[in-house]
Parts: sequence; structure tokens; C-alpha cells
Amino acid sequence: MLREIREWLIGPPLPTTSASHERLDKIRALAALSPDALASVAYANQEIFLGLVVAGAAGLTYSWSIAVAIAMLLAIVSLSYSQVINAYPTGGGSYSVAKENLGSTPGLVAAAGLTTSYVLNVAVSLTAGVAAIASAFPSLWPYRITLALLLLLLMTLANLRGLRESGTVMSVPVYLFAGTYLLMIGYGIYIALTQGPASLQATAPPAIEPVTPFLILHTFAAGCTALTGVEAISNGVTIFNPPEAKNANQTMAAMTILMGILFLGTVGLTQYLAVIVLPEKETILSGLTRHTFGSGILYLLIQSATLLVLVVAANTSYVGFPRLASLVAQDGYLPRQLSFLGDRLVFSNGVMLLAGLAGFLIIFFGGNTHLLIPLFAVGAFLAFTMSQAGMVVHWLHNQGSNWLFKSFMNSLGTLVTGAALLIIAVSRFVDGAWIVIFLIPLLVLTFRMIHNHYDDIRQQLTLRGLPPSLTPLPEPRIVLPVSGVHRGVIEALRYARSISDNVTAVFVEIEPGSGEFTRKRWEEWGLDHDAPLVIVPSPYRSVVGPLLDFLDKTDREHNDGQLASVLLPEFVPARWWQTLLHNQTAMALKLALTYRRKKANKIRAIIDIPMHLRK
Amino acid sequence: MLREIREWLIGPPLPTTSASHERLDKIRALAALSPDALASVAYANQEIFLGLVVAGAAGLTYSWSIAVAIAMLLAIVSLSYSQVINAYPTGGGSYSVAKENLGSTPGLVAAAGLTTSYVLNVAVSLTAGVAAIASAFPSLWPYRITLALLLLLLMTLANLRGLRESGTVMSVPVYLFAGTYLLMIGYGIYIALTQGPASLQATAPPAIEPVTPFLILHTFAAGCTALTGVEAISNGVTIFNPPEAKNANQTMAAMTILMGILFLGTVGLTQYLAVIVLPEKETILSGLTRHTFGSGILYLLIQSATLLVLVVAANTSYVGFPRLASLVAQDGYLPRQLSFLGDRLVFSNGVMLLAGLAGFLIIFFGGNTHLLIPLFAVGAFLAFTMSQAGMVVHWLHNQGSNWLFKSFMNSLGTLVTGAALLIIAVSRFVDGAWIVIFLIPLLVLTFRMIHNHYDDIRQQLTLRGLPPSLTPLPEPRIVLPVSGVHRGVIEALRYARSISDNVTAVFVEIEPGSGEFTRKRWEEWGLDHDAPLVIVPSPYRSVVGPLLDFLDKTDREHNDGQLASVLLPEFVPARWWQTLLHNQTAMALKLALTYRRKKANKIRAIIDIPMHLRK
Repeated sequence: MLREIREWLIGPPLPTTSASHERLDKIRALAALSPDALASVAYANQEIFLGLVVAGAAGLTYSWSIAVAIAMLLAIVSLSYSQVINAYPTGGGSYSVAKENLGSTPGLVAAAGLTTSYVLNVAVSLTAGVAAIASAFPSLWPYRITLALLLLLLMTLANLRGLRESGTVMSVPVYLFAGTYLLMIGYGIYIALTQGPASLQATAPPAIEPVTPFLILHTFAAGCTALTGVEAISNGVTIFNPPEAKNANQTMAAMTILMGILFLGTVGLTQYLAVIVLPEKETILSGLTRHTFGSGILYLLIQSATLLVLVVAANTSYVGFPRLASLVAQDGYLPRQLSFLGDRLVFSNGVMLLAGLAGFLIIFFGGNTHLLIPLFAVGAFLAFTMSQAGMVVHWLHNQGSNWLFKSFMNSLGTLVTGAALLIIAVSRFVDGAWIVIFLIPLLVLTFRMIHNHYDDIRQQLTLRGLPPSLTPLPEPRIVLPVSGVHRGVIEALRYARSISDNVTAVFVEIEPGSGEFTRKRWEEWGLDHDAPLVIVPSPYRSVVGPLLDFLDKTDREHNDGQLASVLLPEFVPARWWQTLLHNQTAMALKLALTYRRKKANKIRAIIDIPMHLRK
Repeated sequence: MLREIREWLIGPPLPTTSASHERLDKIRALAALSPDALASVAYANQEIFLGLVVAGAAGLTYSWSIAVAIAMLLAIVSLSYSQVINAYPTGGGSYSVAKENLGSTPGLVAAAGLTTSYVLNVAVSLTAGVAAIASAFPSLWPYRITLALLLLLLMTLANLRGLRESGTVMSVPVYLFAGTYLLMIGYGIYIALTQGPASLQATAPPAIEPVTPFLILHTFAAGCTALTGVEAISNGVTIFNPPEAKNANQTMAAMTILMGILFLGTVGLTQYLAVIVLPEKETILSGLTRHTFGSGILYLLIQSATLLVLVVAANTSYVGFPRLASLVAQDGYLPRQLSFLGDRLVFSNGVMLLAGLAGFLIIFFGGNTHLLIPLFAVGAFLAFTMSQAGMVVHWLHNQGSNWLFKSFMNSLGTLVTGAALLIIAVSRFVDGAWIVIFLIPLLVLTFRMIHNHYDDIRQQLTLRGLPPSLTPLPEPRIVLPVSGVHRGVIEALRYARSISDNVTAVFVEIEPGSGEFTRKRWEEWGLDHDAPLVIVPSPYRSVVGPLLDFLDKTDREHNDGQLASVLLPEFVPARWWQTLLHNQTAMALKLALTYRRKKANKIRAIIDIPMHLRK
């Protein structure tokens, strides 16, 4: 039954041999690898507006300069990543590049940064997508959290099924987004040219803060989220048709130019046309679209394209995060389950972990993109910096043609992204960046602890020092906890007697008098010939505590070098929901027995006798 | 370790003998039983304002008439419940009264209605409390969900510890709330008398809807949430000092008068002083308080008292819901676990179920009280109506002194609450009442299904028809799944050989070649003398599937009337968090084995051999 639901939701298992490797031409590779970077325009724009609007018209006149600064940063980072593509044509993630060139700790720092930015990318993209559609349909506004969680659920199921970065499917939202926005920018420029600049003084709300250098830096830091996702192409070089490096580099250039146009175009028009919105009712991009196209069908198309491209952008984390987690887990720094391919050839555990973390963020920050943004850029820029620094070391070691120029490009990248990281960390510290700044060292420590644990285990499981043949064990003593006299107990007692002559039944008395009643029935059915029945009182109404005490006592009394085995009669209801109708005493007892440590390092076997109910 | 955290959070276990029954004088009983009813004033007020403000000044002039109608309804319901107190001095909940007098289905309908209203009381009270405090501190507004969930968590922990309806502690918020509001109403009347009425035309926003009969009924229905919680005193008669019925009746009268003053006073003043607020920024009660006292210390005191009394009101569900669930569970209509007293003498399962359901509602409705309200009143008024109808039948059967008058009072109560229920159900259907209207029959069906299941079980477990002595079983065949050659496997093999001479080890090969490697090591260590090793391939990378197939095959081949027992070597890490670092194959296998049904009704034993790791 459960398996049927599972198969319906995520499909039947796939054999290992069906794992294939799709290769894409440049048009489709751009669609597969760029949505994260392109969609960043949506929230980066919003952040620049929110950062400056508090200073009124005087503040908003800085939009263009800030956008140009960020576009220059984008160009430098993009050129630096071209060097990564040249050096690692098999795909160089920040974790691998930093680990290989700088050592394991810098690698783990990059991994920690990437982890936070993958999770935040999902939360930010989904909440921003919901904001885009709720701008068009204001009655959806109060349900933003629920809508974002619903999208998260759908994406998680799709990815557990094994949605590939199928270039063809991705092309629709990506090119729809790029096309409609280019159209809007073109038409916006036409309006701007025919009508001339509008006055921000006339539309902007009154300033509630002065324009200060801090305000500008703070807004610049918020706008830097536009760069998140730029590294995707350098991670995915292997999906390009050969010659991979050349095609990847050309696609990277195309993406950078497209991003630049979308970003500068929308920010520039917003300022030139003096567009203003009420931030608690709609996004600034929605405002710009209404300003150019009115509220008709084109407006709805653009808002839908924005939602779609943001969902696709969130999806890139579903590809990247499980892959990163599996690399880190293979190196022994994360739970090993994260490196197992599920039966749909997907790193299912990584997918579910990502969904859980992103869901938590969405709920905790009330589905509000603006509150999430300060946490976002720190991780991404940390990974940028580590990876660029790693590349500098790479060129110094490996040299090769043009290595001086290449190492200069990556040094520039390191410096610029490092400086941006510093600006982001300082100017957005109190807004929430502090959370990530404390989290990253904590993550690195956790990675190390996990690694140590796996080392310890390996030592404890070795057979070195064991005698060459098995030393035999005596016949087990068996303790059978019973809740009354019924068929399940009879079956359990039969099994117990088939493996041992030493069986004791135990009844924990919670209701006074129930012990005497059970003993009478036990004797009526002649069960005392097969096993004596012991009645144990329970003043605290717990079954587990008195049973554990009884086990300790009987082990002490026998003192025969073994711990009594516990045999548990269990019912298995016919339908899964009926399990909820039964007290999970057997389960609680198993947990307690498994996790209670015995000093002597002896083993207590737990034997389950499941009795299947017919209806 | 886990037990220590648990004890720190909810305290050590308490013996059954320490269960005590606290009795309260009228002053403290009022504080213990009335917060739910009194706090309703906060959100009922808000709902009347939100219902009418869409019709501008013309709409808001109806506030007072609607409030008077609701106050009259309150008086009738309160008088009807006095009859319940007289008839059931041992405490008559709606479930018991309806079940005893009308039969089991009407009883279950009342229980279903109560269930929904208990859960909604928590969600509505907490979100309304957070709105009260966020009105005072606007920066908290975006974190309303997180704050409400935090309060929910704290209350759940306090109730798992076993917070009693301790009259003394409850008195502080309840009398602080009543006192400060009476003070505000008194001062408000003074302002009103000295300044005369203010003009709603001057302050109200323009009408966006006309005043229609539907708008008035719709607002009346929303305002009826003021009555939720009125029945609490009639449920809790036993906590009064003797003579219980007389004291309870006097307290009921005092509570009704106090509610009436608070409700009519605040609604009346809001209209007379023409107070208006922006609903997305503050509550109407916050607006009224600012209008009378300004935004100083008295304002903060009143907002804090509102939050506190709403938290205490939410807490009444933590008393009522687990108690109701335990009554219904004792009758076999809900999972039996809900009737077990936990080790802190609290119905812990009921407490956690309530918290889970309320948490879901808070997240789903975005922490927005206004969206939750339409779901609230249906359940409460359904329970009112069933209970009043039950009382009519009670008087007809039992008669006694004054029975004609008493049955008249309860008939009036049935009619009036029934009519209000109809108005609420119809006028708020599309706003969300439909959810509850569909949910209630579904709940009743579920109650019946659960009851049938327990009947079925009883029949299947009976010993009737069993032979008088145990038929012996043959020596078990044992299958030992192994993941490699290590100490855990050696220990498991030793145990297997102590209970059977027929042991087979199975290795599931996921990585090609790992099977041959394991076989070599198996033979190197001479383990093939104790058990042959079988290698099973796994094309889908699953461990569980191939093992289940192997078990079926070996059972078929042996055909000896038994199913092979499965013996599972398991590691138990030294610290609980390390469990997360290990693949839960043994757990998955146990689940699969337990839930896979065998036609022949034979039993497959599952034997766990836990090996405790030292660090």
C-alpha cells in the first residue's frame, strides 16, 4: 500500500545500468545552467529599490550607479570563472577547486558556504516567485508561505522522481523570461526616449533616512545577490558538446551579457521612469511592468514567466546541493547516506535534506524574501573567494601557457569577491548575515566531527586480534514481556520454546489487580508449564522502566555470562493507518533496549514475533 | 542523554498516587475557567470592525446593534448552561450530555465539533495575542508565525510538565486583563461624556461595499466567536468548593456580566469615539487603547495583558482537548493511547496531538487570525446546540422540580444557538466554514471506523478454539544478512549458532565485485564452517528487495512449514546524533519484514543483535 503510493508519487525503481549522461548544445545548456543567475535579477532589483527607497528620491537616484558597480563585479567574476572552465574541463566546483589547491579545511569552508547558499537559493527563489504572482493576484498575498511550501513539495517530488537538467524543458521558462523582459526593456526604452525622464521627486515617498555612505554600501551588498548562480556553468562543463571548454566559455559570455542587459535595463528604466511601488503589496519589477505594459495580458505573462524562472532557479539547488553533499560525504565529512544513489538514480537523501532546510527557512522568515536576502550572499561570495584563491594557487603550481595572465585574472577575482564579501558581511551583519557568519565555522566543525567518528568506527570493527574460530555461546535465557493472555502471546511462547528451555514471562501491572487476573488466566491455559509468569508492579505507569529493572535483576541473579534475550510479541495491523491505533510499547521497549549501554560490552538480543492481523 | 534532556524539559516521572484534585474558591475558579470566554472579546471585536469597515462609516454605525444582539445571545446561552450545571454537578461536557441523552452518534457529532473548536481556539488565541503585541512593536509584524509557533512550543512543554489549571497563577493575567480593560472603558466613557460623539464620517475610509443584510449577518456571525469558551464553567463544576453547583452558577453569572461589560464597552466606545485603524498594521483594540491612553506605559500594559490573557485562553484547550480525547478514546472511538496518563500524570499524547494540529493551522493560514475565524465558530456552536438539545431530552426524561421551566430554558438555548449555527454556516461558508462543515462528518466516520477496528481485534485475539497445550515448533532456520566481514557480524553469527545449526549468511552486492571480495574474506576467517555465504545481486541498488526475494526463495525450497528467522547485526553508536551517520538498512529491513504479509499466516521472527560502539 505504502509502496504503491510511493511508486505513484515518484515512479518505479530504475536499474543502475540506465544511468545516462545527456549532452546539450549551447542553446539548451544555457537554459539548463543559467536560470539561477538570470532569476537573481528579480530579487536583486527588489533589494536595490528597498535599500534606497527609505532615503526617498535622493536615495533612489543612486540606483543606476550601484547597478553599474554590480555589473562590473559581474564581468570580473565571469572572466575569473572562465579560467576555472579552462583549468577543470571535467567540472570544477568551488569545493573541489579549494580542496585540491588550498587543502581540506579551505575546501570545507567553501563547502559550508555553498551549502548555505544552495539552501537559501531555494527559499529566496520560491518566496520571490510567489511574491511575483501575488503582485498580480493580491488575494494570494496572505497565503504566501503555504504557496511557497506547496511549490517546494512539488519540486521535491519531481526531483525524487529524477527530474534531469533536461535542457529542452528548461528552455521554455528561461527563454520566455529572457524574451519578455528584453521586450519590456526595449519598449521601456522607446517610452523613455519619447517621453523623457520622469521626476522621482514627484513619485517617491518622503525620505525617512538620509543618504549616507553606509546606506549605499548596504544597498550594494544587497544587490550583490544578483551574482548568485554565476558559477553554475563552470560546475557543469561536462554537459556541453565537445569541445566542452570552448562551448562552455562562449555560453558563459552569452549568459553574462544577457544578465548585464536584464539587470542594467530594468534598474535603469525603473529610475528613469521614476517607478515606485508599495513594498508590502507588490514587487518593483511588477511595478515597472505595469508602468510599461499596463495590467493586461502582457503583464500577466511577465509575472508568470518571473514565477516560472524563479522555480527553475530554485531547482538548480536540487541538482547542485545533493551532488555537493555526495562529494563531501564520499570524503567522509557528511553522513554516508548522502552519497547513496536512490532507486530512481537520484541522491534522494540530499534532495530531502535540502527540502527540509529550505522549508524551515521559509516558515521561520514568514515567506518574506527581503528578510532572507541578508543570509544569502555571504555563503555564495565565500565560495567565490575560496574558489578564486584556489585557482591562483593552481596556476602558480601548474603554470602552462599564459599562466601569468590567468593567475592575474584569478587574483583580481579573489580580491574583488573578497572585498565584496567583506562589505556584505559588515554592512548586513545585524540584518541577518551574522547567522551565516556563525553557522559556517560551526558547519566546518561538524564536518570534522563526522570524519573523526568514521575513523573511530573503522578501528572498532576491525577483526584484527580476534581468535581464529568462533567461541560458542550457551543456550540463551529468554524473557517474554506479555500484556495479557491472547493469541500473539501463544505464538511468541511457541517460538521461545523452540530455541530455549529457559523462558520467563513478565507482566507489568499498571492497573492494580490486573496482575492477579492475568496470572489466573495464564494458569487456566496451562502456560505455566512452558514458562513461569512474573508480575512486576509499576508505580509510574510506565511499562519500559520496570521491565528494564527486571532484566537487570534476573541477569544479576543468574550471573551466567550472558544477558537474557528479550522476545517481543507484536501485532501488525492489516492497514497501515491502524498502526496509529495501537500503543507502541514494543517499539518503545526496543528503542530503550537498543540504546541502553551495558558496561560489560555484552550483547542483548531482541527477538520480534510479529503476528499479522487479518483485518 | 535523551532522557536527561527530556527530564530537564518536562521533569521527572510522577507516581500515580500523587494525582490530586485541587479545589478552588470562586475568585480563583473564575480565573481558571473564564480566560477562554473573556479573551474572545479581543478577536470578536476585531472581526466586527473588519466586517463593517468595508462599508465605510455607514457600515460601522451598525457595530453597536450587532454587539447588543451578540450580548443577548450570550445571556441566553449562559442561562441555558446554568441548567447543565444543575443537572450535571460532576461536570457535563457537551460530548457526555449529548451521548447520554441523544445517543452515540449525536455524542460523536458534538465531540467532532468540540475537537475543531479546541484546536482553533489555540490557533486563534495565539495569533491574536501575537497581533496584540505586534501592534505595539511593529518590527515584530513579519515574524508573527514564528512568534506564534514559539508560544505554542512553550505552552506544549509547560503542559507536558503538567501545568494544572492553577487558579492562583491564572489569576494574574485574567484580573490584570479585566482590570485594565475596565479602567480603559471607564476612562473612555469619561472622555465620551466630556467630548461628545466623534464623527465616523470624518475618520472612516470610503465604503467599497454597500450595507446589505448579508453584510450585517456575516459580521454578526463573525462576532459570535465572542461566545466561544462560555461552556467551560459547566465542564469544570468539580473544581469548585462545595456546594459546587451553587458556586459554579454564581461564578457563571459573574463571568457573563464581566464579558458583557467588556464586549459592549469596547465595541460601544470604538463606535462612539469613531476609532479607525489600518488592519494590516494594528488591531482595533490597540487603536481604542491608543485613543484613550495614548501610546505610553498604560498602552503597553494593556497590550501585554491582552497577549497574556490570550495565551492563558489558548491554554484552556490544553486542559479540555486531552480530557475530551481521553473520554472518547475510553469509549473506543479514538486511538487508545490518548487515554493513557503519561509519566507526568498528563494525557501527553493528547497534548502533543493538539499542538501538532494547531501548529499546522498557524502555518497554513499564515498566522492570520482573520483567516482562521470563519473555521472557529461552527464547531463551538454545533457543540452548544447538541448539548442544549441533550438537556431538553434530559428534563423530559428525568423531570424533577421546575422541569418545565428548565426544559423551556434549554429549548430556547437549542433554538437560539441552532439559529446562530445556521447563520454562521451559511454566511461564512465560502470564507472557510465549509472546511469545518465537511470535516465534522469525516471525523464522525473516522470515530466509527476506529471503533470497528477495535471490535475486530478483540475477536482475532481471543483464545477460544485454541488447542489446550502448545504444539512445538521445529528448530528455526536462520538467515543472516551481512554487509561485510567485521566484529558485528561475528557476534551475530555466534548468537545464531547458539540457537540453530541451520544458518545461512547473505550478502547483497550493490558495487560490482564487492561480492567476490567479501566471499574471500569470509573464507579467510573460516566463517564458512559455521554458515555458508550466499551472494545476491542488486540491479536497483536496493538492499531490501533482493533480501526479501532471497527469503521467499529459500522458504519455498525448504518447504518445512516455517519461515526462516532473520538475524540482523546492528551497530549502536555511542552518542545519539551518530545514529544519523549510519545507513538505516537494518531499520528499513525490519519495517519491510514486519509489514509484508504472508498468505499462510505464518510468523517470521526478526532477531536484532545490537553491538554497542565505544565512542
